[in-house]
Amino acid sequence: MGSVGLVEAQRLSFAQPLPLRSGAELRDYELVYETYGRLNADKSNAVLVCHALNASHHVAGSYAGQDKSEGWWDNLIGPGKPLDTDRFFVVGINNLGSCFGSTGPMHVNPSTGRVYGADFPVVTVQDWVDAQSRVLDTLGITQLAAVLGGSLGGMQALDWSLRYPERMRHCIAIATAPSLSAQNIAFNEVARRAIITDPDFHAGHFYQHGVVPKRGLRVARMIGHITYLSDDVMEQKFGRQMRAAELGYSTQDIEFQIESYLRYQGDKFSEYFDANTYLLITRALDYFDPAREHGGDLSRTFASARCKYLLASFTTDWRFAPARSREIVKALLDNKLDVSYAEIDAPHGHDAFLLEDPRYHGVLRAYFQRIAGELQ
Amino acid sequence: MGSVGLVEAQRLSFAQPLPLRSGAELRDYELVYETYGRLNADKSNAVLVCHALNASHHVAGSYAGQDKSEGWWDNLIGPGKPLDTDRFFVVGINNLGSCFGSTGPMHVNPSTGRVYGADFPVVTVQDWVDAQSRVLDTLGITQLAAVLGGSLGGMQALDWSLRYPERMRHCIAIATAPSLSAQNIAFNEVARRAIITDPDFHAGHFYQHGVVPKRGLRVARMIGHITYLSDDVMEQKFGRQMRAAELGYSTQDIEFQIESYLRYQGDKFSEYFDANTYLLITRALDYFDPAREHGGDLSRTFASARCKYLLASFTTDWRFAPARSREIVKALLDNKLDVSYAEIDAPHGHDAFLLEDPRYHGVLRAYFQRIAGELQ
Repeated sequence: MGSVGLVEAQRLSFAQPLPLRSGAELRDYELVYETYGRLNADKSNAVLVCHALNASHHVAGSYAGQDKSEGWWDNLIGPGKPLDTDRFFVVGINNLGSCFGSTGPMHVNPSTGRVYGADFPVVTVQDWVDAQSRVLDTLGITQLAAVLGGSLGGMQALDWSLRYPERMRHCIAIATAPSLSAQNIAFNEVARRAIITDPDFHAGHFYQHGVVPKRGLRVARMIGHITYLSDDVMEQKFGRQMRAAELGYSTQDIEFQIESYLRYQGDKFSEYFDANTYLLITRALDYFDPAREHGGDLSRTFASARCKYLLASFTTDWRFAPARSREIVKALLDNKLDVSYAEIDAPHGHDAFLLEDPRYHGVLRAYFQRIAGELQ
Repeated sequence: MGSVGLVEAQRLSFAQPLPLRSGAELRDYELVYETYGRLNADKSNAVLVCHALNASHHVAGSYAGQDKSEGWWDNLIGPGKPLDTDRFFVVGINNLGSCFGSTGPMHVNPSTGRVYGADFPVVTVQDWVDAQSRVLDTLGITQLAAVLGGSLGGMQALDWSLRYPERMRHCIAIATAPSLSAQNIAFNEVARRAIITDPDFHAGHFYQHGVVPKRGLRVARMIGHITYLSDDVMEQKFGRQMRAAELGYSTQDIEFQIESYLRYQGDKFSEYFDANTYLLITRALDYFDPAREHGGDLSRTFASARCKYLLASFTTDWRFAPARSREIVKALLDNKLDVSYAEIDAPHGHDAFLLEDPRYHGVLRAYFQRIAGELQ
């Protein structure tokens, strides 16, 4: 099993305005993407991989001259890997509003000539999916073999299957939910408040002040990180391990290893992530609720679906617990759709979807083999 | 069942220095307390109630001329209530480092003549218990009928039973744990970082700058609040209820009712709670770990215990889950101690210990009746 090797990001510019769910539209935008493997003659082997909160189009492979630049799902995608690039043509697209290349808050608003900042329009999962479909138009892909995503990426995969039912044969949605719970929204809201009330946020126009709301970003990331890990794995990895043999009796110094770990995660994140992007992406998560237009009835929501589904969840994921995946499975079964579901006993919480677990990867490998068998 | 009626806080000054676990000592300190009911002739009917994070000595009754000034456990304590003040003499003491009257960071350090601020020494559960025991000395109470507490208050009750085994007959510890888990510490640490990195914190000496780190306090409280409630009760109370009929497409405005609720809780808290106190109390929680001095062996830890125990936990409490109470129950049973344990099926999460649930209050009522039966 190998790597897809060195990769390069590509860029597409779109002149035709993109109408957004909010009623606004985005004009003159760019989308950055990467592809791995080769598109076959009848263009039937393309798999779109949708990314979650702090990831990007850089899904697999590495960048020339950059150590440790492996894509975020490199363990899954490559020659001989579960999503086998010897058989599939894989596309990763950076979502609008991101800080990793596609048009986002750090770019210039063509209507005003100034950096968007907080004026970047609110984008939704549906908007992302619409933008992704335009990239596929450009690549000449009329029907995807599959759309694959975990967490927020899984929501995009679900939305694809609802609104572009003829453009895909399989939907693979991992560690996801049909909508956020009140508790999920609550955690997002606290993270947003930490950022917005950081004096360096300057109402979202911090770029022109030459500062970054790092305090808020750190706190936001620390909160997020707690929810990505299971209670169990945190206990196992850190427990009550102290940094020193003796208690220091301080409220500000690090006493426990878990504190050190969280602060490190927060610091690292605040160095590279954009505060406005964080707000936009958490809001897209909050808003995702396809059943809303169907009176809250998830079964009716999936009446328009046509593709086959694989769903997977992880037993210790308390952010998007297995029960949330089961809600989707039930709605799919109510519509007599072809659905496979794996509830994987893994200790790592929500993060498990990014990790290399043999049972989990085994499920994905088998499912992609099935899809490959359907190719000519 | 009635109220204890109008109550008044009392104050005791201590000239003898209190040695603290950190090695520091506190001199010339004051403790504020309240009592309800009457101490009987042989002083055998006293019950000490220990308070948790944001509570105080004001456990029951109301203050004259103050609407809605009921004590924080007024539903439990009063004539004819589960902790019946017709039979028991109830004592509530405000812990050192608090912002509700006892000596704390907002007071003047007699050694320097300046407000303590961040220089207030780190206090532990043991320090609080030692200070409480001095109040009881002054009141002439040599043996308590019971020590009662929930959450952090339960930790104090447990510590009492370990270090003052001859001074109490019953320990009632509700919704508590033998120590914080890594996840518990993680949430505390994020809350502390939010406060400490608020520019208005001024390294803990914000009083002299005439400001309060309200942003940090708000975020800290919002985080805390999420962990006090169960996922279920949040879903039931708020779910995905919107504030308006239509989505507003904003990252900063309130869209969901849960956001409104959390912001309100945060705002209210930041108006009355002291930032340094918040740091001190969360640290006391982190440090509590009586098994640490016994090689992590909780059974050996309770070898010195002599009193009888009632423990109670709530099924939906994910902050101090029933499993944590069961660890304590097991350690008590290993020592052949008299222990009652109730695992109460209540939907409200950690907050359940403050609420009036008939099964929960029934358990407490029965247990206090048993204690009353032992009185002369």
